[in-house]
Amino acid sequence: MNYPGGINKRSNIKYGNRGMILEDDINATNNYYITHDIAVIRKLPTPITIKKVDYISSHEVKIKDAWFQKKSTTDYNGIYKGHYIDFEAKETRSKNYFPLSNIHQHQIEHIERIINHGGIAFLIVSFIYYNEIFLLDGPDFIHYIKNNKRKSIPYTYFQKKGYKIKLKYNPRLDYLKIIDKIYFKGELYEKEF
Amino acid sequence: MNYPGGINKRSNIKYGNRGMILEDDINATNNYYITHDIAVIRKLPTPITIKKVDYISSHEVKIKDAWFQKKSTTDYNGIYKGHYIDFEAKETRSKNYFPLSNIHQHQIEHIERIINHGGIAFLIVSFIYYNEIFLLDGPDFIHYIKNNKRKSIPYTYFQKKGYKIKLKYNPRLDYLKIIDKIYFKGELYEKEF
Repeated sequence: MNYPGGINKRSNIKYGNRGMILEDDINATNNYYITHDIAVIRKLPTPITIKKVDYISSHEVKIKDAWFQKKSTTDYNGIYKGHYIDFEAKETRSKNYFPLSNIHQHQIEHIERIINHGGIAFLIVSFIYYNEIFLLDGPDFIHYIKNNKRKSIPYTYFQKKGYKIKLKYNPRLDYLKIIDKIYFKGELYEKEF
Repeated sequence: MNYPGGINKRSNIKYGNRGMILEDDINATNNYYITHDIAVIRKLPTPITIKKVDYISSHEVKIKDAWFQKKSTTDYNGIYKGHYIDFEAKETRSKNYFPLSNIHQHQIEHIERIINHGGIAFLIVSFIYYNEIFLLDGPDFIHYIKNNKRKSIPYTYFQKKGYKIKLKYNPRLDYLKIIDKIYFKGELYEKEF
């Protein structure tokens, strides 16, 4: 098993970097989904712009100078129960709101496009202050964006429209259980596989 | 419009590098599909392992030492008519066969997994010698792998089981027309959008 982003070991996490913990929990969950044949969902590599490389041999290229690109799409995608899944995961230390500066305009357009094409798109947002992780379904996210001029989504909106994801041992963040609830009338994946 | 891999200009291609041309034609096609609201399919960035970075500022990180990882999944994925799409694109200069050394074991497993989960997976293979590009559907590819010990797929198998993709002006490689043929009884996407 060598899916991108699916092989981090928890022991390697820098605990000062909360962003890594959410990402790692999601990667571990995706790994669980793959090994249990529940879904195939992967973290997409961060796109980079390469300025300079060294050709070590005909098979080995060393990148000497490169930059991270601004992402224009979401971080995770894949397939679940035959459906296209697409989501972004973000954390905030804020108590009262999720700042929309976390999500680029291109990413919002991407999420909207996925919904229009019949895919399942959503956000996973971790409120570090409350130690709470929410799944906010794509249509509810887009609805908020279209009807509010604020540059943030209040915590209360997540309480009202979001679904809390409880941290478990394995899988750590069982977000597909919530997708089952929203899209498949609560039919759990265990029944199907 | 800033989808990864979707912004190459044809004028920038090194024509000595055929691999780039197929990739560029597919990227241009995917860009056409997005701008015409037909499908959302993207090239996934190549995963890299980063060894050393320089922190230029709080927002800028320069990668000083990194290596390309061996890919364990396919190059392209997305959504079309509500269906999950996943494919790999390869070229060969060989006249008589497509060498399977081009596709890693992990990628084969990935394609099989996608099919089992109800997705649409396939290969696009360009035979440079004949100037012919084929779409080989995932189930036909897996069927060959499982029933042959050869380390290559003969050109004749592509002639028999594959679908030729004609190069056009725009979109350059209209591979979804073939997906329509195989999966949607030839119903063209123009009718739906």
